[in-house]
Amino acid sequence: MKCDYSLYLVTDRGILKGRSLLQAVEEALAGGVTLVQLREKDICSRDFYQLGLAMKELTARFGVPLLINDRLDIALAVDADGVHIGQEDLPLAVVRRLIGPDKIVGYSVSNPTEARYGEKNGADYLGAGPVYVTSTKKVDIEPLGPAGLRQITAAVSIPVVGIGGINLNNIQKIKNSGLAGVSIVSGILGSDDPGRTARLIRQQWGNV
Amino acid sequence: MKCDYSLYLVTDRGILKGRSLLQAVEEALAGGVTLVQLREKDICSRDFYQLGLAMKELTARFGVPLLINDRLDIALAVDADGVHIGQEDLPLAVVRRLIGPDKIVGYSVSNPTEARYGEKNGADYLGAGPVYVTSTKKVDIEPLGPAGLRQITAAVSIPVVGIGGINLNNIQKIKNSGLAGVSIVSGILGSDDPGRTARLIRQQWGNV
Repeated sequence: MKCDYSLYLVTDRGILKGRSLLQAVEEALAGGVTLVQLREKDICSRDFYQLGLAMKELTARFGVPLLINDRLDIALAVDADGVHIGQEDLPLAVVRRLIGPDKIVGYSVSNPTEARYGEKNGADYLGAGPVYVTSTKKVDIEPLGPAGLRQITAAVSIPVVGIGGINLNNIQKIKNSGLAGVSIVSGILGSDDPGRTARLIRQQWGNV
Repeated sequence: MKCDYSLYLVTDRGILKGRSLLQAVEEALAGGVTLVQLREKDICSRDFYQLGLAMKELTARFGVPLLINDRLDIALAVDADGVHIGQEDLPLAVVRRLIGPDKIVGYSVSNPTEARYGEKNGADYLGAGPVYVTSTKKVDIEPLGPAGLRQITAAVSIPVVGIGGINLNNIQKIKNSGLAGVSIVSGILGSDDPGRTARLIRQQWGNV
């Protein structure tokens, strides 16, 4: 499936500043987000499913693909456009086998070895991170920075998006790292105006 | 799929008294458990998958089917014999569609209305409960008791197992409730000798 990775929004309900998730995502989509990943860790399957259905309706209205984090069953149930798999999720090759060849499968990596593993085992794209220090996700891994990103993008031929702590202030530094796009959580959803922020990031990213 | 529901073990890693889950389940299988449901709520998908693979190998050795609680993706990934779906999980009809007609799908119910819904929407069997007050699972529902169970078994023609607080001391009272079997968590895994307890329960249940 063809996919525009340039401005990839990953959700987090913990940073919404009183807005509903659907409202914030809609504003971000209006601002130019090209891909959405629904990430939920602490809700029951029924709520995840209902939210997934609503999110799919919303993203479809903007012609933007929806991926589901981790939960292949939710992705299948809401007929999402794909899944994003981390190192603590189901094995990549198992997910690819179960979801079939036509859906998007993304894979989180932190180094060139994991990146090559991802490319070899069926990932359509890689999420490389953390690029910078981030508060959204607790990780023990040293931030990659522009140099670490370049090592990863040089190791594979599939698209790579950077994730982790990317915002308007530091996005310029990773422009020449060979990325297909930037994946942003709090930089957009935690900002005062998700639509405006998405628009500004997209402008910055476009001005290569 | 043909299935013997008479002594149905549901797992809970919180009540193991120092044993490993696989060890306790193996003892219970040796004691006569006829069906196993792997229930996990707080582990990552990767760990659930690995545990599911190990559990499947174990149950297969005893010729006993393995069901996975809630997580259809884990059930698919480890090729389990089916899933068990609660009221907070994916909708029953969606699960049946995704898992296909040949796997076992169980459904948790607390009253005749839910039971009829389950039968109509593709459940192979129903788990009716809580039969008695139980500490394993927090629920707001009044225990069914023998009379409540009879209302449920009378409402449907698919097999019904009772679950919740069943143990050697109270199993006699639900023998004439029309059940296909008893589903037990702490009554077996929380006992000092899971194998011996399973054997005794099976004897008690067999002596109808």
